[in-house]
Amino acid sequence: MTQNVQYSNNVDATLNSFIEGGNYNAVMVLVDTNTHELVLPLLPCLSNAYIIEIAPGDDNKNLETLTRVWREMEQCDATRHSLLVNLGGGTVTDLGGFAASTFKRGIDFINVPTTLLGAVDAAVGGKTGINFNGLKNEIGAFAQAKAVIVSTIFFPTLPKQELKSGFAEMLKHAMLHSHKSFEQLLQFDFQNIDYDLLLSLLHESLKIKQHIVEQDPTEQGIRKALNLGHTVGHAFESKALCDGKSVLHGYAVAWGLVVESVLSHILLKSPSDDLYNLANFVKENYGAFYITCDHYDQLIDLMRHDKKSLNGEINCTLLKSCGDFTINNKINEDDIKAALDIYRDIMGI
Amino acid sequence: MTQNVQYSNNVDATLNSFIEGGNYNAVMVLVDTNTHELVLPLLPCLSNAYIIEIAPGDDNKNLETLTRVWREMEQCDATRHSLLVNLGGGTVTDLGGFAASTFKRGIDFINVPTTLLGAVDAAVGGKTGINFNGLKNEIGAFAQAKAVIVSTIFFPTLPKQELKSGFAEMLKHAMLHSHKSFEQLLQFDFQNIDYDLLLSLLHESLKIKQHIVEQDPTEQGIRKALNLGHTVGHAFESKALCDGKSVLHGYAVAWGLVVESVLSHILLKSPSDDLYNLANFVKENYGAFYITCDHYDQLIDLMRHDKKSLNGEINCTLLKSCGDFTINNKINEDDIKAALDIYRDIMGI
Repeated sequence: MTQNVQYSNNVDATLNSFIEGGNYNAVMVLVDTNTHELVLPLLPCLSNAYIIEIAPGDDNKNLETLTRVWREMEQCDATRHSLLVNLGGGTVTDLGGFAASTFKRGIDFINVPTTLLGAVDAAVGGKTGINFNGLKNEIGAFAQAKAVIVSTIFFPTLPKQELKSGFAEMLKHAMLHSHKSFEQLLQFDFQNIDYDLLLSLLHESLKIKQHIVEQDPTEQGIRKALNLGHTVGHAFESKALCDGKSVLHGYAVAWGLVVESVLSHILLKSPSDDLYNLANFVKENYGAFYITCDHYDQLIDLMRHDKKSLNGEINCTLLKSCGDFTINNKINEDDIKAALDIYRDIMGI
Repeated sequence: MTQNVQYSNNVDATLNSFIEGGNYNAVMVLVDTNTHELVLPLLPCLSNAYIIEIAPGDDNKNLETLTRVWREMEQCDATRHSLLVNLGGGTVTDLGGFAASTFKRGIDFINVPTTLLGAVDAAVGGKTGINFNGLKNEIGAFAQAKAVIVSTIFFPTLPKQELKSGFAEMLKHAMLHSHKSFEQLLQFDFQNIDYDLLLSLLHESLKIKQHIVEQDPTEQGIRKALNLGHTVGHAFESKALCDGKSVLHGYAVAWGLVVESVLSHILLKSPSDDLYNLANFVKENYGAFYITCDHYDQLIDLMRHDKKSLNGEINCTLLKSCGDFTINNKINEDDIKAALDIYRDIMGI
């Protein structure tokens, strides 16, 4: 199934055409506190929409928030012919997509990602869901948005770490695609951000992702490539949650890409230059996730509980080189520990 | 999408072939207290399955139970390659199907309906879900079971009202199909139940249903025919829930079929003989749902909140005659009230 993705900096007009074309009997918009204040006023087409507001941040992507959203959808008399517009980052689009796809067994939703991470990660590909019991995206569904409207007009006001978070997923796509794409992204200068360049890089990045997703919408095979960096990255995120903290998803992915590049180097002899160039870029722009060898067993246990695991085995996508990936690599504990040792060494922790 | 339905009285062997063929890393079985005690021991192929037990009854088909099932699935280290067998009536298959289709964004499930209603209503057609906020099946998803195994071996130990409950859905299918099928079911004798006859009637009934579902799996059009009796029936069920009671689903459908047959007679001139024959059969076997004219506004409000409603309008499937249905009939309040008056009159309340 092809996802309808619209690239447009005239978000209001584009969104309005979908709203008018859909002949909906009610339009709701899901925002977080930030997008309510900063983004919603920029979209006059939503001035009559019923507003559902949630608290920002991944730790609110939970069952309690979901239950409240379902309740509010009911309170505004939403029917199967109503529309939910998800206006926000990954928390809003993941939770809102799941809320819409399960409300009365499914109503239309449109995603308007307001963060780079939202655009590149959560808004395209049909994955929706919430965290549950301390595990990331443990409950959810595959559900396609009616449309996704991608723009860069909301990014300049974002904190820089939000941009970096999204950029990590773009790095992943580039690594899956070609050495040239990878090198191009490593040149990106976060001190002097070029938003026009970023838009073109984003468009290219989403084309790589869509090409993979369309071949395998429910993640039976090749789509697992998109899990590059995520087996370890999710374990870092889950560890942070267990410790009562939270880290930005893209930061966890960036660190996960480094650890999994170490694994690629150990197991598949991927070039060490690429590993060191990546590690330097990540260290400079993302810092490092602090771990000691005392955390290895906890991290390994979290990796075993990952959705990608089979029979409790740890499963990673790895690279022979940029653009040449293999899915379903089973990783043993010793290799994970060795990779975490090297990660700590090259990241200087 | 064609649902894989197996008609077999050798349930253990049939189920076992799916379990062995699926190469699952964990098999879980969802039961209620009754099926745990009475049915599970009849299926040796599940002797090593992880058992998840819930309390019986539609009022346990709620978010709290669902949350516990998700948690228990996690506790037995279920992965995307695990299987959930739903062994029970509609509560188990509806809730279990939704739990499985949302756990890690979806794992395989097999439905083994143990009640006639489960076989005829909930186990075929891909509708899963839970009640929420006092509304029936308000949260859910369309998700196809890997297989549905239909048999009559579990029915003789059921209370007779469970059989009657399922039989009401068969009545509905017959009314949608032909006058001959309708007349045949009205001859059925609940005093001396012929289980062989029932199996053949059930098979025929499910063929009618599957034929409709396959043409329209997500209920955009013709599948709405299957809502016959349900607009009013659900309102009766929801009213009972609001009053802290519960009625068997099929009983509510039987009463709903009578009210909607009155509407068919008023609005589409359907034959009065069919109406009176139906009403007599329902009164004799199901009794009547007690309402007074003081309840009309509440019932109408509940009908407006039904999933089938559009723009707050009340939407029913109606019959010109048996086998000749029309979907999407918008019903005004006066006609509902008139039909409820006649329902009370012919049911003697």
